[in-house]
Amino acid sequence: MATADAIRAADALRIMGIPCTVSPMQTLKLEDLRNVLIRQEETIIFSLIERAQWKINQIIYAPGAFPLPDFSGSFSDYLLYETEKVHARVRRYTAPDEEPFFSDLPLPILDALDFPRQIVPNAINVNGLITELYREQILPVICQEGDDQNYGSSAVCDVACLQALSKRIHYGKFIAEAKFQADRPTYTTLIKARDSEGLLALLTNAEVEQRLLRRVEAKAATYGQEIDPARRTQSCKIEPAAIAGLYRRWVIPLTKQVEVDYLLLRLEWE
Amino acid sequence: MATADAIRAADALRIMGIPCTVSPMQTLKLEDLRNVLIRQEETIIFSLIERAQWKINQIIYAPGAFPLPDFSGSFSDYLLYETEKVHARVRRYTAPDEEPFFSDLPLPILDALDFPRQIVPNAINVNGLITELYREQILPVICQEGDDQNYGSSAVCDVACLQALSKRIHYGKFIAEAKFQADRPTYTTLIKARDSEGLLALLTNAEVEQRLLRRVEAKAATYGQEIDPARRTQSCKIEPAAIAGLYRRWVIPLTKQVEVDYLLLRLEWE
Repeated sequence: MATADAIRAADALRIMGIPCTVSPMQTLKLEDLRNVLIRQEETIIFSLIERAQWKINQIIYAPGAFPLPDFSGSFSDYLLYETEKVHARVRRYTAPDEEPFFSDLPLPILDALDFPRQIVPNAINVNGLITELYREQILPVICQEGDDQNYGSSAVCDVACLQALSKRIHYGKFIAEAKFQADRPTYTTLIKARDSEGLLALLTNAEVEQRLLRRVEAKAATYGQEIDPARRTQSCKIEPAAIAGLYRRWVIPLTKQVEVDYLLLRLEWE
Repeated sequence: MATADAIRAADALRIMGIPCTVSPMQTLKLEDLRNVLIRQEETIIFSLIERAQWKINQIIYAPGAFPLPDFSGSFSDYLLYETEKVHARVRRYTAPDEEPFFSDLPLPILDALDFPRQIVPNAINVNGLITELYREQILPVICQEGDDQNYGSSAVCDVACLQALSKRIHYGKFIAEAKFQADRPTYTTLIKARDSEGLLALLTNAEVEQRLLRRVEAKAATYGQEIDPARRTQSCKIEPAAIAGLYRRWVIPLTKQVEVDYLLLRLEWE
């Protein structure tokens, strides 16, 4: 660990309002991290089920469709931005496992907590891609077409969905760090060779992914089911196979992209 | 319907920023309203399960424990207040089925939607009681004792729980209106006699309540269960009987209090 460099970098980040300590890195256990990811599946699935009760309401994603003061984006963007401003003030984005969707956020009004040093400082943020994915791939799968005028309710659900997806996908940084710590020599060789493909292959555990997809489908089926002890129904609020499909096609690949991006800058902190 | 009075009252409400039309009242069907309440059970249970993943974190309910600018309340109150300010600006509280927890909120930046006239204008708001109930009765049932430092996450969950409970409980206004419309003579007699006990008895349908409690317990058991197709577990994130107990002891009685309060002012609009 190049301590002097680390301290300089930490100081630079602190000046930018990003908390950074140079205490020794903690050892991360993949098993603990996996349990966090597994619990985040509930948060994601609950938030998608909540959004699915409203129609797609395309107008809330159209920039300029609502007369919002000093804001040229969409209604849904506006609610996310205003919510992020509130959360930024109570230091949400000083946590290493939180990434904001907007960059011009106010500084925290509270002192940053002293988080354990689990990952190296980085500016990886794929929230732009997550927003695109959510609007173009996820909403059409979970929501009925049309407009039911529940704009505010839909946008509040959007905030919850986007924040849950973002937290999960950026958690790839922690997963990558744990995998790096568990096999430094192999990862170091691939990182030095800038071998993204090789890193992606090494990060991939097909068996774990298959188990994840089966579990996500089972969760969507269970948490999405209509419950009425008086009437036996088989209907589900979201399509379980489609939710597993969203994980397979988008959530897992984006998480792995974050993992590769993180590894590619990891050696700067050795 | 005393149209001239109604128009005067509507004008007064509009001046206060409360939208009010004097178009004819819509006929409300109890069956439709019950389906809304049933769907709200999912929102409430999901939000309680989400809160239950964090410890009780009592410090976030202690006024003055965090140095919040121009705010003497607790951290959880602050996040709710700031969130309500954002939601107020996008006209959340112009909807007849939404009641804010704070009164000094900004005016909407968007024109009010023209909501169908389903209930009479009223200022019934039991959110003070809901906050007390949530902090003192619900949190100790769903959360582990202790402090895990997840203050922001806990407070974000608090906002979701409180908003979901508030919406459900204030929906009693719609239920009361539907019941009133279905039996005007009997309700009118009791209202004129200011017979709150009689109204409460007339509003109560023990069979529907029993069915609701069984359904809520089944939902809590299903949505709270841990899912892992690889391992069969029986654990649940919240105690199903306790959630049904919260409905029986607090959510249903408070909803009925809103119903009675609404009926007691209903004849002013006849």
